[in-house]
Amino acid sequence: MNTSTTAVIGLGAMGLGMARSALRAGLPTAGCDLREAARADFAADGGRACETPAEAAAGCDALAVVVVNANQTEAVLFGRGGALESLPEGAVVLGCATVPPAFARELGARLAERGVLFLDAPISGGAVKAASGELSVMASGSPEAFAAARPLLDAVATTVHQLGAEPGQGSTMKMVNQCLAGVHIATAMEALALGIRSGLDPRTVYEVITGAAGNSWMFENRVPHVLDGDYAPRSAVDIFVKDLGIVLDAGRASGFPLPVTAAAHQQFLAASGMGLGGADDAAVVKVYQALSGIELPGDGEA
Amino acid sequence: MNTSTTAVIGLGAMGLGMARSALRAGLPTAGCDLREAARADFAADGGRACETPAEAAAGCDALAVVVVNANQTEAVLFGRGGALESLPEGAVVLGCATVPPAFARELGARLAERGVLFLDAPISGGAVKAASGELSVMASGSPEAFAAARPLLDAVATTVHQLGAEPGQGSTMKMVNQCLAGVHIATAMEALALGIRSGLDPRTVYEVITGAAGNSWMFENRVPHVLDGDYAPRSAVDIFVKDLGIVLDAGRASGFPLPVTAAAHQQFLAASGMGLGGADDAAVVKVYQALSGIELPGDGEA
Repeated sequence: MNTSTTAVIGLGAMGLGMARSALRAGLPTAGCDLREAARADFAADGGRACETPAEAAAGCDALAVVVVNANQTEAVLFGRGGALESLPEGAVVLGCATVPPAFARELGARLAERGVLFLDAPISGGAVKAASGELSVMASGSPEAFAAARPLLDAVATTVHQLGAEPGQGSTMKMVNQCLAGVHIATAMEALALGIRSGLDPRTVYEVITGAAGNSWMFENRVPHVLDGDYAPRSAVDIFVKDLGIVLDAGRASGFPLPVTAAAHQQFLAASGMGLGGADDAAVVKVYQALSGIELPGDGEA
Repeated sequence: MNTSTTAVIGLGAMGLGMARSALRAGLPTAGCDLREAARADFAADGGRACETPAEAAAGCDALAVVVVNANQTEAVLFGRGGALESLPEGAVVLGCATVPPAFARELGARLAERGVLFLDAPISGGAVKAASGELSVMASGSPEAFAAARPLLDAVATTVHQLGAEPGQGSTMKMVNQCLAGVHIATAMEALALGIRSGLDPRTVYEVITGAAGNSWMFENRVPHVLDGDYAPRSAVDIFVKDLGIVLDAGRASGFPLPVTAAAHQQFLAASGMGLGGADDAAVVKVYQALSGIELPGDGEA
């Protein structure tokens, strides 16, 4: 089987990109979002735009849930008008949100009771790679779930890490990645702000560090937002309030101390407390500005 | 002037590599180290091996101080048998250790009083790049100091960042780099240990993360030491006890909070407290092992 009737629940930047990649690969694709504008965008591309998950899931072979968190995943599957009202037995659900590994394990068991396959399949790569069909997927689940998800995975991803036969292993790897990613963002902003406070030009800091051992994927990707004074959210502060929260909850549940992660989480919380929860996550730099009075690029512009 | 009589004080992995690169570039080069074995290594390469900095500095145009910290820099320059006993007026000292920016500024002023130029010139790249003449140098100082240091810089570095006309700016940039590098090492070990604790295979974590947004230069470089169970020091835990200490002292002196750096520093201190100060800095992972009982690669081998 090289085709598959597909649905994507959640047409944010990631979901819309995935749904478009699925269409482009020739899969009949339904897309569902609460927001009318998102549905209109997708319909204009030739997709089948739906108001409810149940509508999108009817007759579906593979359904990707591309929402923000575990609560939303729960709601779009099991809530009123949810996908389980119409999803055929034998279909596969791909859980793409970053969720606690324990939630992913439990979800797999609940779907199995309904005769539905589950692939624990968090995604990585950002909106640009979602749109180009070049995501990375950190996936775990049964061979049957992988097989049923294959046409959709082939359409949206260039790398599919097969991490095991049980739901939970994919979400665990995503949690480790988010731990690193979140700490690296907070550290990028802490170090950049220290450099500015110490008299260095922020553009020079970027140029030197990106060629040195202090570099990280996140430093290289996020510091330009600060240099441009552009905090329009590509990924928001509150996403890392949530994701580092998942990491810390998992640590607490297994008696595992995470002091560096905990310190970074506080800086995202501080940014959120300043009213910046919806801003780009690079806005964590404004926490350091508030505490030290440093000048940032773009300050004082109209 | 394309040649320059050169001396390197401190023939550890970095200094020996630099001294050899200078020799290879055709510069007459003296090398000084307390350890007889290091001097013998350098003499075997055709270098002039000296027991005291004063002996190495006689007749010298450019002298690189490649020691561990500010105290050693002070001692090899101004102590008994120190370089200032014989260094000619008009020569340039390159300060290559990671030191507090305030120390670098003060050192420049003290050397100027003696008619000696100073280039604040911390180095980055590790022992391999020191040996191949491909270091990065984060340098600041007067145009005269840069000009006098040029033959030696050309011999040892492929990238020389010219960060300003005053000593201190080079050390400030190095401090920002070490802030990031140190936090990234601690975070790499925290996240890797969390992954192991959560049931992931450490080699798989390495493979997935190095291709994902959670990657850092340090994650990619240091995690293999853990996978190999090899804690022979390429750079030791106590180096980051010192370097993050410099970062935190600078923050305290200027009223600048650094909560993520402070948390990471505690993990290096914990490793040092466990008796691992001289081990490779990747041994920070053993702090997490001690607190959680995770198994690490190489455990249980003879």
